[in-house]
Amino acid sequence: MSEQTQESQDPTVEQGQEPKGSVSRRAVIGWAGAGVALGAAAVGTVAAATRSSDEEAEAALKAVPDIEFYGEHQAGIATPVQDRLHFAAFDVSTTSRDALIRVLKEWTKAAAVMTGGREVGTGATGLAEAPPDDTGEALGLPASRLTLTIGFGPTLFEKDGKDRFGLKAKRPEGLIDLPPFPHDNLDPARSGGDLCVQACADDPQVAVHAIRNLARIGMGVVTVRWSQLGFGKTSSTTPEAQTPRNLMGFKDGTHNVSGKDTPTLDEHIWAAPGDGPEWMTGGSYLVARRIRMHIETWDRTPLSEQEDIFGRTKREGAPFGKQKEHDAPDLAAMPKDAHVRLAHPDSNSGAKLLRRGFSFTDGSDGLGRLEAGLFFLAYQRDTRKAFVPVQRKLAATDALNEYIQHVGSAHFACPPGVRKPGEWWGQSLFG
Amino acid sequence: MSEQTQESQDPTVEQGQEPKGSVSRRAVIGWAGAGVALGAAAVGTVAAATRSSDEEAEAALKAVPDIEFYGEHQAGIATPVQDRLHFAAFDVSTTSRDALIRVLKEWTKAAAVMTGGREVGTGATGLAEAPPDDTGEALGLPASRLTLTIGFGPTLFEKDGKDRFGLKAKRPEGLIDLPPFPHDNLDPARSGGDLCVQACADDPQVAVHAIRNLARIGMGVVTVRWSQLGFGKTSSTTPEAQTPRNLMGFKDGTHNVSGKDTPTLDEHIWAAPGDGPEWMTGGSYLVARRIRMHIETWDRTPLSEQEDIFGRTKREGAPFGKQKEHDAPDLAAMPKDAHVRLAHPDSNSGAKLLRRGFSFTDGSDGLGRLEAGLFFLAYQRDTRKAFVPVQRKLAATDALNEYIQHVGSAHFACPPGVRKPGEWWGQSLFG
Repeated sequence: MSEQTQESQDPTVEQGQEPKGSVSRRAVIGWAGAGVALGAAAVGTVAAATRSSDEEAEAALKAVPDIEFYGEHQAGIATPVQDRLHFAAFDVSTTSRDALIRVLKEWTKAAAVMTGGREVGTGATGLAEAPPDDTGEALGLPASRLTLTIGFGPTLFEKDGKDRFGLKAKRPEGLIDLPPFPHDNLDPARSGGDLCVQACADDPQVAVHAIRNLARIGMGVVTVRWSQLGFGKTSSTTPEAQTPRNLMGFKDGTHNVSGKDTPTLDEHIWAAPGDGPEWMTGGSYLVARRIRMHIETWDRTPLSEQEDIFGRTKREGAPFGKQKEHDAPDLAAMPKDAHVRLAHPDSNSGAKLLRRGFSFTDGSDGLGRLEAGLFFLAYQRDTRKAFVPVQRKLAATDALNEYIQHVGSAHFACPPGVRKPGEWWGQSLFG
Repeated sequence: MSEQTQESQDPTVEQGQEPKGSVSRRAVIGWAGAGVALGAAAVGTVAAATRSSDEEAEAALKAVPDIEFYGEHQAGIATPVQDRLHFAAFDVSTTSRDALIRVLKEWTKAAAVMTGGREVGTGATGLAEAPPDDTGEALGLPASRLTLTIGFGPTLFEKDGKDRFGLKAKRPEGLIDLPPFPHDNLDPARSGGDLCVQACADDPQVAVHAIRNLARIGMGVVTVRWSQLGFGKTSSTTPEAQTPRNLMGFKDGTHNVSGKDTPTLDEHIWAAPGDGPEWMTGGSYLVARRIRMHIETWDRTPLSEQEDIFGRTKREGAPFGKQKEHDAPDLAAMPKDAHVRLAHPDSNSGAKLLRRGFSFTDGSDGLGRLEAGLFFLAYQRDTRKAFVPVQRKLAATDALNEYIQHVGSAHFACPPGVRKPGEWWGQSLFG
């Protein structure tokens, strides 16, 4: 996944397709408002007066490059994991294929400008008599490595036997309705969805702003079915960095797929020609599971038992019987029901998932307990060969099951990337 | 509020009262685990091998100094506002005054070590047969400017006519039961509480870790009544910094009280001798309100109307008819129901609140709308002269009322700071 600053090499500009009137959030730091009380001349004066601090702010913001929106694959999968998440599942409320396509086109434009740190629509030049195009809460904030990743759920292709948008024949066989697993306690209000958008950024305000503006653009055509905020990434795609910890206090994702490991990505994460319908080539299948942790019970469990359950030491993250986090695990030496042993590729015919989950804490549950856990996100080339067999094994025997419960579930086909301006999310499917 | 690194000038160490066995989270980055499979010799070897990267990590972490826990006032009030919030209200489930005091003493010790970036309890030297003292998810993370601020609710002093802990006579007159305001739609499950702890940090994982470990220490004595995560501070106590924006896209807190403005803090924020009971001198009264925003409706409102409602321009934040954010507002020129006009000290006999609120987004509400808004936190010397009259005015006529609803409410007396190791939260009240 290449990263470049939109400032220095903006493909929109290169191709002469700068979305009309889109305004850099950066360039306007310190600008005067668009208020009716202010004429254009006054705006100009103020802008000139604050020029120098604008330039300083601009320089500071350039230190962290934006994540490139355009490419063969969607950003937000192999991309180094950002600090925060806002994930939204949408239902399509219209029966009009054209209306849905129109929203997907508008979403794509908006995604390209927001991931470049710019604001949606015409910004300062908008009419005072109209609602602002951009909701404004990210004005003055950098792009914060924002990525927006779209996926299509099974119900978009067929729902209650209906071919809603003429897509039924294009549903990938791999986009299965996930089977029930033992111990599942799924809340329909936190499951499924016709569409999803994963917003990841280092600043939650930027991620929330992005989902909100997409929801707004989609008004009348799509509605938010459920959404989830996450923090404290629980797996990274950059194995050279410090491995993050989940809310059980254990390092998570020590051997996660690296975003730079092209051979593994090609073999396990990206859909290849011949895998299914051609429109998914270069895409990936996403499984999202909301996993509640019974952390109060966990916190009363002895350290040795916690370590036996994971198959790793807590402090260092070393595999059972080993000394350092990255020592090769000796699976046979671990307890038979240890999490690492059961989830390891060697126990699952080599199946690998790219994990990109986040911790969540959504207040408390009314019984004096924190409503907290892991929002598990995993990308894969074929869910039937990766998540399903692994989860079947875990659900049956994982020692961790005493402390967790899956309460939400969804499955999405994430299409390949938008290669250049003018193309749009889902073009290969609808086009 | 002084800030110093706990490393260089740790008052705990100075006074020879280093809490037994407390372990620096920093010093252990890269250490081997406490697993039963590892002998002490092995731990030593690994520690030596990773010394150099420890030192590098340590140096990087020192760049942001910790916030001093000890002082005349509690940290987390005048302190420069951090990026993230985890706020918890607790109910006391015991009738034992001694048990409550024991928890407050243990909380104080834990707060001192956690705000110093260290882990609770004995850490690596703990017994494998016992649950770990620290839940572990913040291991390897810096203190992230963590502050922990405690408050006592009206029900701690008297509940259903009962003097539960012999504190009734010590209840400050100013710690009123907040009156009902027009348009309130308060959920009891999101209101009130015998105690509160405000955890602020630049990393949500650190704030969540702190609340969770306090909840764990208090098990059997206190239970979480409600809790709230927040991001995107909506007011800052550092007027020289960029003013943050709320989820309505407007700059919020332009004229908030500065954390460095000692005369204003003394006049408006800190309780003074003679204000009420002596135990509150140096403390402050905290009002917490969960304010839901109807953002979908707001987003359809014309820009000029949004600006009329706030009394400021959206982009720049300039007061009505002015050009720059910090221009003096001409209140009389604003619409009579403009938010800034009604909330301004000049419209409220000079009343000033130190605002320290955060935005929240707690998923969606089941009707396709984001459950989002402002978690309003305001500190003041006397709630009867500050929040109550201002909110009475706002609730009656604020144009913003069409777009917001107060759904949670609580009031707490936050005692003065813990001056030195050995003292404890609430000592002036219980002692």
